[in-house]
Amino acid sequence: MKAVILLSGGLDSSTILYKAKTDGCECHAISFDYQQRHRRELQSALLVGEKAGVIKHQVVNFDLRQWGGSALTDDAIDLPQERSLDEMSQNIPVTYVPARNTIFLSFALGYAEAIAAERVYIGVNALDYSGYPDCRPDYIQAMQEVFRLGTKQGREGQPISIVAPLINLKKTEIIQLGNQLGVPWELTWSCYAGGNIACGVCDSCRLRLAAFAELELKDPLHYA
Amino acid sequence: MKAVILLSGGLDSSTILYKAKTDGCECHAISFDYQQRHRRELQSALLVGEKAGVIKHQVVNFDLRQWGGSALTDDAIDLPQERSLDEMSQNIPVTYVPARNTIFLSFALGYAEAIAAERVYIGVNALDYSGYPDCRPDYIQAMQEVFRLGTKQGREGQPISIVAPLINLKKTEIIQLGNQLGVPWELTWSCYAGGNIACGVCDSCRLRLAAFAELELKDPLHYA
Repeated sequence: MKAVILLSGGLDSSTILYKAKTDGCECHAISFDYQQRHRRELQSALLVGEKAGVIKHQVVNFDLRQWGGSALTDDAIDLPQERSLDEMSQNIPVTYVPARNTIFLSFALGYAEAIAAERVYIGVNALDYSGYPDCRPDYIQAMQEVFRLGTKQGREGQPISIVAPLINLKKTEIIQLGNQLGVPWELTWSCYAGGNIACGVCDSCRLRLAAFAELELKDPLHYA
Repeated sequence: MKAVILLSGGLDSSTILYKAKTDGCECHAISFDYQQRHRRELQSALLVGEKAGVIKHQVVNFDLRQWGGSALTDDAIDLPQERSLDEMSQNIPVTYVPARNTIFLSFALGYAEAIAAERVYIGVNALDYSGYPDCRPDYIQAMQEVFRLGTKQGREGQPISIVAPLINLKKTEIIQLGNQLGVPWELTWSCYAGGNIACGVCDSCRLRLAAFAELELKDPLHYA
């Protein structure tokens, strides 16, 4: 069974790549260079994809800095730092990128249909850091309907399925799953800050570090 | 009221741009260079946008030839020629580009949210040439739900609306509407073939020519 895997190079997407392999899929990865602050993540995505033995890895290039609207695509918007997990979960954060998952899923859909894949895997999760609107189950369900109605495959009765195995897992549970699956955490990248060493203080680093700490495991990444 | 207009440079999208103006919108255009066979259409999109006085015109670049899957993005797939309107309407044609409107609407959604627009205009129509799955009302309705659930604006009760004024019009009715609105047909471009003069024999040229002929109007474009 062919599958397209949305692979950013972080904990979640790396885990779903290994999950897709375990599910018996022939994995085709897709990553995006959208001029994100943390383009460094692409190196990790490529290394994780190679390690996992993906059949093909597409990197799609476009520029979301054309209109910005997020701390990840506009250097004039400061990246939040040293926030507690409580603070992170209260509002939709400034790191929200307008329509990002919709854009990512759209390209994944096009790629999946072009290679006649049956599934698209996405590593969204709605529990931790649940501020992002495009990480929630009702949104994924709405996109599934678009997958069904917006494609030839779907209209012919063979819609491509969105598979989101992490949607109801906590970050600690994702790490536990990844450990079972043998995800190479040392190759992954979560930091938003844009440096070559993880900052340890952006929301993404703090969420990652807190989850490893709660499990009493060591995160193999180096932090500034 | 701010609106984002999906503008390819053809009859339909040029008409909705003028429709949005008449609706009182402050128009922001968005066009796509996806390495389509008929990239020539972008020149027309820019000219039509300029003529209509858009506030800003974004051209987003990406490459759908990375995976092809359409006669418009893969030179190895021949463009259908000299087909009758009946032949065109029977199946989903090879000019269908997997997930194209989903990709276009996703970028338009991101742009609209970044500039706090209220509407996205799209020139789909389901009557003539209705083979494309992502031009039908049920698909647009599904995307509307994605617009509502996948954005901050939507979650905060201010979803961006998809406006598709042509969805139930025939091509002849679109031309009549465009004539009322003063659309500069001489600046538009419909041909798929990739030349600098419209071929007159691809599906898109034939549909356009047939509609002008049915109305006993002259299409101002030159044909090979």
